[in-house]
Amino acid sequence: MSGVLSPVITPFNPNLTPDATRLVRQCRWLLSQDCGLTVFGTTSEANSLSVDEKIDLLDALIEAGIDANRMMPGTGACSIPDTVRLTAHAAKHGCGGVLMLPPFYYKEVTDDGLFQFFAEVIERVGDSNLHIYLYHIPPIAQVSISLTLIERLLKEYPETVVGIKDSSGDWNNSAGILRRFPGFAVFSGTEAMLLRNMQSGGAGCISATANINAAAIHNLYANWQAPDAEANQEELNALRGAMQRFPMIPALKQVVAHYSGDASWERVRPPLVKLNGEQKADLLNDLDKRSFAMPGLVDVAAR
Amino acid sequence: MSGVLSPVITPFNPNLTPDATRLVRQCRWLLSQDCGLTVFGTTSEANSLSVDEKIDLLDALIEAGIDANRMMPGTGACSIPDTVRLTAHAAKHGCGGVLMLPPFYYKEVTDDGLFQFFAEVIERVGDSNLHIYLYHIPPIAQVSISLTLIERLLKEYPETVVGIKDSSGDWNNSAGILRRFPGFAVFSGTEAMLLRNMQSGGAGCISATANINAAAIHNLYANWQAPDAEANQEELNALRGAMQRFPMIPALKQVVAHYSGDASWERVRPPLVKLNGEQKADLLNDLDKRSFAMPGLVDVAAR
Repeated sequence: MSGVLSPVITPFNPNLTPDATRLVRQCRWLLSQDCGLTVFGTTSEANSLSVDEKIDLLDALIEAGIDANRMMPGTGACSIPDTVRLTAHAAKHGCGGVLMLPPFYYKEVTDDGLFQFFAEVIERVGDSNLHIYLYHIPPIAQVSISLTLIERLLKEYPETVVGIKDSSGDWNNSAGILRRFPGFAVFSGTEAMLLRNMQSGGAGCISATANINAAAIHNLYANWQAPDAEANQEELNALRGAMQRFPMIPALKQVVAHYSGDASWERVRPPLVKLNGEQKADLLNDLDKRSFAMPGLVDVAAR
Repeated sequence: MSGVLSPVITPFNPNLTPDATRLVRQCRWLLSQDCGLTVFGTTSEANSLSVDEKIDLLDALIEAGIDANRMMPGTGACSIPDTVRLTAHAAKHGCGGVLMLPPFYYKEVTDDGLFQFFAEVIERVGDSNLHIYLYHIPPIAQVSISLTLIERLLKEYPETVVGIKDSSGDWNNSAGILRRFPGFAVFSGTEAMLLRNMQSGGAGCISATANINAAAIHNLYANWQAPDAEANQEELNALRGAMQRFPMIPALKQVVAHYSGDASWERVRPPLVKLNGEQKADLLNDLDKRSFAMPGLVDVAAR
């Protein structure tokens, strides 16, 4: 897989159950923006969903005709059985890949222990369709994917462990992976590093803000060698900066709610909370000044 | 609930499934040592188990006649549905209480969001049998239970939210809770603070090392006003210090394996790893020098 993917935000019904209908619509819109689908990412509040809920949502997406090749569901959980169950389900559906967190409860674990975790999962899933993208997000998971661990996994499972999402925020880490493992797909966890990543042989990016700005991010991905690439990178950074003034997940949901005219998108699951009135006004006012738009969203949302 | 409780280590079969038979035996032995049962605590590798596995183990314990009143299963998970499912099951079985982690994936969450999480869980479980002990373990969960959050929960759910396990390692935090919320049951997360906790009106302790040293810890709990209490505290600290030279969970399992003569206790689930040969020899040699013993363990293990 390559290009721009969105960790798709998850819509909730008034009783906080996941809303499969709206998720399908949103995925269609994202695909129309040349954006792949990392459903069940961090930004999807995936860790606030049970495995059963994720399986049901994935089934609904497949049933609605969403292309499995364009999907890279997040499937990593703290326990081997949970990780195996969701990963096997995604592989069975022919998903292009899965994004796999390390087990993130126990801290100060060893590369040995993490290797054994991933190895158990791969062996138990036992599906040659499985393509794993490791998920390195130390600010949240706290547990890291080291270069030594990648090397060991690549040596043992070269057909299965095919890439990484690097959400460390540390460009040197991505650069180190790209240098050491040619052919290994490196996705930046933020579009702010997209141009550098492409210049260094990276695969693209998987970024929260792709939920609202996918077309522009894809434009930089597709035209990173163009003369205006630096300027386009600056523009992406500016919008990202505007969003980062607020808690990212509720801010993204607020933006989608506003530009789709569908307030139900505002809902988050605890422990997250919605933006308050002041934050909401501040954010939407800022976006309005920037002439921000989400073309086609209203039409897709109305379908 | 009060006294000394052990976050009971979880035995695994060769294929890494949980071994209910050995868990039942171990719980019987712990009860014989005046030790309550915090099955599914951090030390139980509970976060490496699926909810289904925990439900099956709890059913097996109840079916084997283990007293539900002496059980405080850990039930907190990252998602509301997972937390509700296991908590409701424990309440239905009449467990004396449950130990509830905050949702621990998303970081920098607000007290508002955490309050809503616990409130949703309590409302959805909807069982007047439910007694929640909050689980404050910032070194591992990273997400904390603040005094403000406790206050808000106590105000809204005074019959349900009845105590806390404080594994912050910060005595000032426990002291602050004890001062501010009289009658709220405070368990130290380590026996190293047991005497101070009892002197300040605390309820006892829930400590990893109770898996191997419960009788001595209970002795201090029951006789904290005795003249030799300080000396007994020192002795508990010495054994704890000996264990803390090693990764705690595999070290405890190694000790139980050795003193029960049952090597299957050595198994851990990834991402944890067993002690290596050198660590094992070092630990067992040290315990031998201390004339450490686990009276009755072999008999119970043989049953």
